Amino acid sequence: MRKLLLSASLLLSLSALAQEEKVDQEIINKIIKEGTTNSQVMNIAFHLTDVSGPRLTNSPGYYRAADYAIAEMKKWGVSKAGLDAWGEFGQGWQLKKSYVAMTAPYYKPILAYPKTWTQSTKGLQKAEVVVINVKDSTELLQYKGKLAGKVVLVNRTDEYKHSFKPDATRYTEDELQKMAAYQIPTQPQGPRQGGNPNMARFGAAQRLNTLIKELITSEGAAAFLTASTASHDGTIFVQNPAGNRVDFVNGKPSVLEIAVAYEDLKTINRLVNMGTPVSMELDVQSEFTGKDVKGYNVIGEIKGTDPKLKDEVVMIGAHLDSWHGATGATDNAAGCAVMLEVMRIFKALNLQPKRTIRIALWSGEEQGLLGSRGWIKNYVGDRVTKEIKPEQGKISAYYNIDNGTGKIRGVYLEGNAAVQPIFSKWLEPFKEMGASTLTLQNTGGTDHISFNELGIPGFQFIQDEIEYDTRTHHTTMDSYDHLVADDLKQMAVIVASFVYNTAMRDGLLPRKEMPKPVQTQR
Amino acid sequence: MRKLLLSASLLLSLSALAQEEKVDQEIINKIIKEGTTNSQVMNIAFHLTDVSGPRLTNSPGYYRAADYAIAEMKKWGVSKAGLDAWGEFGQGWQLKKSYVAMTAPYYKPILAYPKTWTQSTKGLQKAEVVVINVKDSTELLQYKGKLAGKVVLVNRTDEYKHSFKPDATRYTEDELQKMAAYQIPTQPQGPRQGGNPNMARFGAAQRLNTLIKELITSEGAAAFLTASTASHDGTIFVQNPAGNRVDFVNGKPSVLEIAVAYEDLKTINRLVNMGTPVSMELDVQSEFTGKDVKGYNVIGEIKGTDPKLKDEVVMIGAHLDSWHGATGATDNAAGCAVMLEVMRIFKALNLQPKRTIRIALWSGEEQGLLGSRGWIKNYVGDRVTKEIKPEQGKISAYYNIDNGTGKIRGVYLEGNAAVQPIFSKWLEPFKEMGASTLTLQNTGGTDHISFNELGIPGFQFIQDEIEYDTRTHHTTMDSYDHLVADDLKQMAVIVASFVYNTAMRDGLLPRKEMPKPVQTQR
Repeated sequence: MRKLLLSASLLLSLSALAQEEKVDQEIINKIIKEGTTNSQVMNIAFHLTDVSGPRLTNSPGYYRAADYAIAEMKKWGVSKAGLDAWGEFGQGWQLKKSYVAMTAPYYKPILAYPKTWTQSTKGLQKAEVVVINVKDSTELLQYKGKLAGKVVLVNRTDEYKHSFKPDATRYTEDELQKMAAYQIPTQPQGPRQGGNPNMARFGAAQRLNTLIKELITSEGAAAFLTASTASHDGTIFVQNPAGNRVDFVNGKPSVLEIAVAYEDLKTINRLVNMGTPVSMELDVQSEFTGKDVKGYNVIGEIKGTDPKLKDEVVMIGAHLDSWHGATGATDNAAGCAVMLEVMRIFKALNLQPKRTIRIALWSGEEQGLLGSRGWIKNYVGDRVTKEIKPEQGKISAYYNIDNGTGKIRGVYLEGNAAVQPIFSKWLEPFKEMGASTLTLQNTGGTDHISFNELGIPGFQFIQDEIEYDTRTHHTTMDSYDHLVADDLKQMAVIVASFVYNTAMRDGLLPRKEMPKPVQTQR
Repeated sequence: MRKLLLSASLLLSLSALAQEEKVDQEIINKIIKEGTTNSQVMNIAFHLTDVSGPRLTNSPGYYRAADYAIAEMKKWGVSKAGLDAWGEFGQGWQLKKSYVAMTAPYYKPILAYPKTWTQSTKGLQKAEVVVINVKDSTELLQYKGKLAGKVVLVNRTDEYKHSFKPDATRYTEDELQKMAAYQIPTQPQGPRQGGNPNMARFGAAQRLNTLIKELITSEGAAAFLTASTASHDGTIFVQNPAGNRVDFVNGKPSVLEIAVAYEDLKTINRLVNMGTPVSMELDVQSEFTGKDVKGYNVIGEIKGTDPKLKDEVVMIGAHLDSWHGATGATDNAAGCAVMLEVMRIFKALNLQPKRTIRIALWSGEEQGLLGSRGWIKNYVGDRVTKEIKPEQGKISAYYNIDNGTGKIRGVYLEGNAAVQPIFSKWLEPFKEMGASTLTLQNTGGTDHISFNELGIPGFQFIQDEIEYDTRTHHTTMDSYDHLVADDLKQMAVIVASFVYNTAMRDGLLPRKEMPKPVQTQR
């Protein structure tokens, strides 16, 4: 059990809880065996990635993956497997052709990937490059009337950084111990006194960027090229145009914005800066997809067997939607494949959980947790007013996976200290597999938040990074080969065990206080 | 001075040599100042890469770079700056368009780069994919009559390896000490007894690959896709088609062979293997370039000032040609930029070397040291018979750079123990800059070999790896941004100092014995 700085009486009661917590080692062993020797997790991942293609919300790829998941669940005997509308999203979008090259001063293919929900070119289009090099909005005026039909980029002064650190990493014991030692701050941290000068500078740069983007749009530029600092060595970071100002709700594509390789962008930038005219040719064709603008999650259930407890639920989930530059293998076919594999393991072993187990594969996560928040609104309560429905009291816990392909090293407790002794007991069988760390830290950014916002204990697991932040997250390299098979298998057996334990224990998992209603800004 | 296991008497005489060796610290300081504060090395590198484009031998890009180098040298006051024909090469080749995509089961841009001296497609071509999956030539027969107009790839069973080591590295002190401790084997190592089973397996695989390639060619496949294990994360390793069987001498393009990203190849491979038809579209246009099939090196000289020594020469060089996937920044614009900068430093400081200094920027290195061997044949002697011309006795040393962008850590002595105390003295001013290691080891693969083959001391420097073998060597990422400016500056001042010392010392550098004539195989 991990050392937590809690009061002696609380420690005592927590310790008592841990004593009571029962783990059925025989069942756990069966889960480990099924998830290790009969694993289907890589086969599922293959269908969600290579076979389905990119899974941008409401794109055909998303529904290929959803249909596959539903069909597989039905095959395994999972009940209620199907789509579940969560609200209005808008149209999907998909690429039909992408060709970008420099044609003068010499021919050079450009590594490029158009951003989502942007315009097509008018067939194969030729264009000169203009580099916008301004310090403020006054200087920007000189480009007025000069951008129509041009390929535009904004002058860059940063430099390539060579990778003296590995792309792929796993947590060290030292790092895990630091996470375990984390304490919840006793005083809530108020806003800092005085403005942050970095934030002020950042704000000014953001405003200038907005003006530049507006000028590019109003002038009718052929395309706007950008390169994330995360784009290097041929990996391109690509999602929607900056500022999230894409209009997928009303089907209005924004100006063609293309993520290009950092090295390519800088080459073009340097050539133009030295006075060499640079010409390009582009043929980018894309389309808004689908007529039904509602968004749909994928749902499935394994009905609880205990007459008194079967209306209570253990939920697991991961977001099924991805960005479009690759096939969202680590973000987040990995999580979906693991959660589907958990359902398969339950059915393959014919486990009889007392409580109902529900899987949810969310859509619209990448546009702001839309699928999970929509589902919560429909079934659990209002995240602003905190008005709740009866279901809120029946969901014991929600387990989410969305940290890539790395194996589980423990659990983020999200400040819920009361579950610490319980999870500590549940992790015991998995110490040998590298999972033994519990931290009171939060981890943000994904669908467990939607549950915590309504007072339901939502958890993410601590996972080894592998290449998540360096190579795969929202990039053109987030594809099947970047998955680690052994790690996905480990994840599935640990999650299956947690789910089983949650479904079988005497009570619901302890909860934190319900958060206060959100003070809306207007 | 480093510890070498040599006889006591030799040690004594080497030590005496070191005593005699004079270094003009005032000149060295001037070189360091000029090469550090007024460096032009990155500007030169920019013109050789971004401005010139890929520099495949005899392609327009090669001559853009050559013309630039000649013009710059003339501007600096370097004499005899110009092209020098070394023999017959054949035509250059350049890409005019490259577009490759998967169109079914869904649209996916494919990261691809056509190999040199291959065919174009007939405009935009659509094709189905066939995966050849055979163990031997008998199994190969089943594909006869089935490859015409298809995109072909050979089944792959290897797996992606995540990078748990950094792409970029520098030599550790420990590694340098091991290099310094290297001893020349006292017994020449004879051929191993018994066959090597790995070599036998490799030979069989090679023969099968040749048969596959012949079938693809004779059937008239649309394209042959390959992926090097060095192609990953968006970096593509690309040179000429395997087996070097390209015919650049007679202007006959080989079947279209395209290097693609490993991840893309494997996705297509897996889809076909599961029975999903995969369609692609390709538009690859390229051309053989130039009518003059002779190859040309770039030469320049700074005439010696000592009446007795001015006919003796110190040579420096690097190969100017590159592969075509990027702009050959680390292979080898880096070496050329450094060597040109050395010439610039000499002229900027108006140094008066006793001996003549000659720079040679070679062509055809990537096709087998063709430019340097051709030059040697024209001016120095025959590498097979070892018949020599008078020039052989006048070249004191040849210094080459072709190990990427990493700074100099020392010198490979190529078994020439007698220069060890001399170079040891010459390196003294650069210990602080990280260069102090001398190793008797050879380093192969580049143009200093052409000199050593005729008994002239040819040297390569020990350089930090940075990303050479992991990321840039013969890849689409070998571009300007992958250069390390401070390292190139360090290299230039060290090479300039070595050149100055070689030009000023009392005698020529000690030589090893002339190698024996080559026993030709037929």
